[in-house]
Amino acid sequence: MNFASDNTAGAHPAVLQALAEASTGRAMPYGNDPWTDRVAARLAEIFETPVEIFPVATGTACNALALSALTPPWGAVYCHEQAHVEVDECGAPEMFTGGAKLVTLPGQDGRIAPETLAEALDRGGFGSVHSVQPSALSLTQSTECGTVYRPDHLRALCDLAHAKGLGVHMDGARFANAVAALGAAPADITWRAGVDVLSLGATKNGAMAAEAVVFFDRGRADRFAFRRKRAGHLFSKMRFLSAQLEAYLADGLWLANAAHANAMATRLAAGLQGLPGVTLRHPVEANTLFAALPGPAIDAMAAAGFRFYRWPDAGPDTIRLVTAFDTEAADVDAFLAKLQSILLIPAAATGT
Amino acid sequence: MNFASDNTAGAHPAVLQALAEASTGRAMPYGNDPWTDRVAARLAEIFETPVEIFPVATGTACNALALSALTPPWGAVYCHEQAHVEVDECGAPEMFTGGAKLVTLPGQDGRIAPETLAEALDRGGFGSVHSVQPSALSLTQSTECGTVYRPDHLRALCDLAHAKGLGVHMDGARFANAVAALGAAPADITWRAGVDVLSLGATKNGAMAAEAVVFFDRGRADRFAFRRKRAGHLFSKMRFLSAQLEAYLADGLWLANAAHANAMATRLAAGLQGLPGVTLRHPVEANTLFAALPGPAIDAMAAAGFRFYRWPDAGPDTIRLVTAFDTEAADVDAFLAKLQSILLIPAAATGT
Amino acid sequence: MNFASDNTAGAHPAVLQALAEASTGRAMPYGNDPWTDRVAARLAEIFETPVEIFPVATGTACNALALSALTPPWGAVYCHEQAHVEVDECGAPEMFTGGAKLVTLPGQDGRIAPETLAEALDRGGFGSVHSVQPSALSLTQSTECGTVYRPDHLRALCDLAHAKGLGVHMDGARFANAVAALGAAPADITWRAGVDVLSLGATKNGAMAAEAVVFFDRGRADRFAFRRKRAGHLFSKMRFLSAQLEAYLADGLWLANAAHANAMATRLAAGLQGLPGVTLRHPVEANTLFAALPGPAIDAMAAAGFRFYRWPDAGPDTIRLVTAFDTEAADVDAFLAKLQSILLIPAAATGT
Amino acid sequence: MNFASDNTAGAHPAVLQALAEASTGRAMPYGNDPWTDRVAARLAEIFETPVEIFPVATGTACNALALSALTPPWGAVYCHEQAHVEVDECGAPEMFTGGAKLVTLPGQDGRIAPETLAEALDRGGFGSVHSVQPSALSLTQSTECGTVYRPDHLRALCDLAHAKGLGVHMDGARFANAVAALGAAPADITWRAGVDVLSLGATKNGAMAAEAVVFFDRGRADRFAFRRKRAGHLFSKMRFLSAQLEAYLADGLWLANAAHANAMATRLAAGLQGLPGVTLRHPVEANTLFAALPGPAIDAMAAAGFRFYRWPDAGPDTIRLVTAFDTEAADVDAFLAKLQSILLIPAAATGT
Repeated sequence: MNFASDNTAGAHPAVLQALAEASTGRAMPYGNDPWTDRVAARLAEIFETPVEIFPVATGTACNALALSALTPPWGAVYCHEQAHVEVDECGAPEMFTGGAKLVTLPGQDGRIAPETLAEALDRGGFGSVHSVQPSALSLTQSTECGTVYRPDHLRALCDLAHAKGLGVHMDGARFANAVAALGAAPADITWRAGVDVLSLGATKNGAMAAEAVVFFDRGRADRFAFRRKRAGHLFSKMRFLSAQLEAYLADGLWLANAAHANAMATRLAAGLQGLPGVTLRHPVEANTLFAALPGPAIDAMAAAGFRFYRWPDAGPDTIRLVTAFDTEAADVDAFLAKLQSILLIPAAATGT
Repeated sequence: MNFASDNTAGAHPAVLQALAEASTGRAMPYGNDPWTDRVAARLAEIFETPVEIFPVATGTACNALALSALTPPWGAVYCHEQAHVEVDECGAPEMFTGGAKLVTLPGQDGRIAPETLAEALDRGGFGSVHSVQPSALSLTQSTECGTVYRPDHLRALCDLAHAKGLGVHMDGARFANAVAALGAAPADITWRAGVDVLSLGATKNGAMAAEAVVFFDRGRADRFAFRRKRAGHLFSKMRFLSAQLEAYLADGLWLANAAHANAMATRLAAGLQGLPGVTLRHPVEANTLFAALPGPAIDAMAAAGFRFYRWPDAGPDTIRLVTAFDTEAADVDAFLAKLQSILLIPAAATGT
Repeated sequence: MNFASDNTAGAHPAVLQALAEASTGRAMPYGNDPWTDRVAARLAEIFETPVEIFPVATGTACNALALSALTPPWGAVYCHEQAHVEVDECGAPEMFTGGAKLVTLPGQDGRIAPETLAEALDRGGFGSVHSVQPSALSLTQSTECGTVYRPDHLRALCDLAHAKGLGVHMDGARFANAVAALGAAPADITWRAGVDVLSLGATKNGAMAAEAVVFFDRGRADRFAFRRKRAGHLFSKMRFLSAQLEAYLADGLWLANAAHANAMATRLAAGLQGLPGVTLRHPVEANTLFAALPGPAIDAMAAAGFRFYRWPDAGPDTIRLVTAFDTEAADVDAFLAKLQSILLIPAAATGT
Repeated sequence: MNFASDNTAGAHPAVLQALAEASTGRAMPYGNDPWTDRVAARLAEIFETPVEIFPVATGTACNALALSALTPPWGAVYCHEQAHVEVDECGAPEMFTGGAKLVTLPGQDGRIAPETLAEALDRGGFGSVHSVQPSALSLTQSTECGTVYRPDHLRALCDLAHAKGLGVHMDGARFANAVAALGAAPADITWRAGVDVLSLGATKNGAMAAEAVVFFDRGRADRFAFRRKRAGHLFSKMRFLSAQLEAYLADGLWLANAAHANAMATRLAAGLQGLPGVTLRHPVEANTLFAALPGPAIDAMAAAGFRFYRWPDAGPDTIRLVTAFDTEAADVDAFLAKLQSILLIPAAATGT
């Protein structure tokens, strides 16, 4: 049973079915195909506003490309100190932006507080030739800590950013989980709150490899097609990216998958909270949770074949557990049962 | 009927089948999966030598990443003046290499003559701080003109390059077509001839979106994983890239597909040569051909619904026709029949 | 006697004097000083129009920075195939632009013909995502071949460029020599002809190390200060760059120096034309000339201690001779006398 | 009286004299001149070891180029959170390295504690493809806070870095001040402690615009000449950079200048410590000091014509004062006298 990441799941059957159907016959390449047109229309519908969209295949590409549309090479991009763009992309944002600087901010439970951003902007060095120029704010929704930003929180952050001329990017690798968790309209946690460009993830939540850069501020999309091509992220057989997205967004699949994953995380959290010696590091609001366990119990669970990552950055003896669209309640229960059995045995008995 | 490009085809059923099968169950991400291991082993077998491989999803990424492993930012990369890396990648090689310079060479039928390379290297400015430093040679096999390099021709070029310290890259977006055309061992037109790194294409020949950077000079692969990740080309659900490649390389599918596409191009060429006013611009050795036609006939064929690109760079009134693994003999024959009927009508009658 | 380059000369005494005077007392750094203000005012006067200026210390920095203001990373910069930016800057334009592509054009005597540019722009791939986007034209005045562009020639080129949305850069490393040669108003061969940004050289013509990026299209100067700083080309003690420029532009020094250098080249050319077996490769219009000589005579002149570069790119047995502000007529005459004496000896007698 | 920065000083007369002398006659360009050879020999003597040196004109260029020799684009460079490379170079290190990431570390009085570095390296993500790879450590000597690192402190840091494969860079914009302060051999605070490459500053301490990248690990200098040229930092009339350095390093001028500046800072610090309401933020060990003053006193001193920067990052109501080689004791005393007079007046009387 694998709780290492939602990217260890396969693709949803509806996505595979869409790929098979899309493969019939010839189609013009590079996005000049009906699938791509339909995805664009569908996203405009979902977000209740005209959008410019650019499908790509990986979250790192999606984020790095989006940021490159918001900052010059001498710009600063503010983000949470645990943001994926900062810690997990091997410098892709720096590569795509031509060397912009990510300026990290602390923040409880993966969220940046408006006051923290305000203070950082006060020290922003605007107009000083010696200082990188504050150009973008990047927010992750749902966050790397498994929490979500409420709409008013987002609006406060975006207002601060916009007041100083920064554009706002949202890393939505797990955007569906946030929508499902909040029960909010997608628009309410994006453009209505002030987000200019969204990295909309699908891969972790049922697609094979499909994401989309979604521009609400369409003026910023102007020359984006060149950026995507130049980075090797324009697919010739684009219909296969778009078909994945079309299936993902059809009939509420994306939200159903996310709601299921969230529910599994909630179930897991509830079970963990009842166990002795287990502490949750953050509120569990989406599909990712961080739990502190007795060290020997971590080793024992790993030895028992459960897959998860140890996460020292979140604290000592901490593991990360991620649920996905295909996580079954039985998997969760098996994890909890095994952990309970381990914790009830005196520690000495489990020692190596 | 679509002769615009082999990338207007869908995916081969065996590839789709492999994707569906790969989707079962959980797998560790980022290439730590059995599919990727098996592809690596299969390629070592096909090339009869140990290799390091890195699957990616687009040809542009494959080429630009491969070149970035061969040249410093102050390097020069020699290539044919019609090379895809030069004319069709929107500067991706420059982006990935940090600004290396592509130095273009002329050459009959898309092939660089050894003397041309030798002369260029003589003017290479080796060691002069004012000059970009010759670092790599990039060859396309099969070429952008639809021809192929013979093994001894490749060896002569690679020997010149190696003698001066350059690495050799092969753009094999249509590598299978070259292997099928030459009946050569894959090794004979790659590492045995001196190629250090190959961009092995699969997308145009049956895959959905899958290519692989194949290092024969494995020392150059050293830190390549960082390059791929940083460019957003490391797939989390890598098994889906590798499954495509596995199906593509299994049971000779890649060569069968290529041989079929080549045969369709040969059939098309044979038919065109018999038509009045039609000239082939280059020998037809793989699956791409360039034909000069009376201008009105081009318009009429387009109006009749045939899809192809006009190709002024190859000469006036010239079109490019590309066949693929799924091109049917009936498609070719219909194209020829229609063109024949148009050409037999006096030109005035077809006028605008 | 040194004809290798005008950069083998020292600094003009007036420049050294200005440096000594500028060193008195404290001055605020980074250009917030009166010297820099005065240079800006002086250049506005010389060019008869408001300008934005940015002093830097090297010609390569001046050119590469200027180009970076005219093209995005996915842009194409058209230039002559012998342009300094293409052949002598080790890829600096690529570095500063983030990887834009220099597209080289042939042209008699170092000048691009309008028809050549027009044809290149016709094949420019405007709007195609696969193609780098034509963004700038770079012209050298005086040219690398020692010729100059007439105002109407420049205007024809600039009009073509502007009609397609390209900006125009002039590499004026030897701009003074062109002004002196043409007797034209500086404005007539820059902004009145359509030049948007000029690299104004001073180093080769009397300064120690000083150039200026001069923006006629001041909108393009917007964020240029960040580019200069970020490239390490913002001097803290800027007054020392500006003082050089101030002295250079005062009292007509720049034009007097250039006129003298030009006159020395003319004298040299006149003498060479009278010698048997000597051919000038290009018209001699500024301070650089290329001469074809019998090979043994080249060796003999070098052995006699004359300094010059062999220039195979300009043809076999060709040398480049450059005069400077401090070249004396006696130097020229000594060169000619020695060469005459060598040429009058039967070739066999000079052989190695 | 100007305490804003040591870069508001002019050049030392010996430097100006050297420039005038260097201007005589012709010299081969780009460093092929006797001045440059002599500087290299002199630095080998001063550092008691063979070195490779590369003169450049600005501190930002010196640092950014040096770092680019130590890290790949996917590397991490550790530095103090107040390091000049991080806060004052507008992203030049990112530009020159192709997008490497600066990872900042806290540290008392501008110095990184070995334990802090050790902890950061423990979290370094070595070998993980998702993480930028720790590649360099950059230390400033004397520090941005006006303190110095002792040799054993440096050695502890360098040992940690080397044990993990990182190279060590020293930003020595004020290196002379550190040598003078410590009375140490230059070797003892550079290569003998483990520094691989030094940015040796001269501009702030008597030169006009001259620094040198000094490689102790000469293997890393291998292709550095291309980096310098490509960045526009190779001077054609190099003798004028080298002549500055030669004069600077001759007859102990560099250390005499630095010792004087340090003494003036000590005098200033001593005076400030005796004043009511004045606190020094850091130990004063070189030529830079940070003082907290009553806010109205800061305003009053500025109004009285004293030049200095307010430095909110060092704390509220804090100013930075920098002395230079030409600061006179009378300037210091005048500053102190004026401040004393202001502080003795009741605060209300100074109000706006």
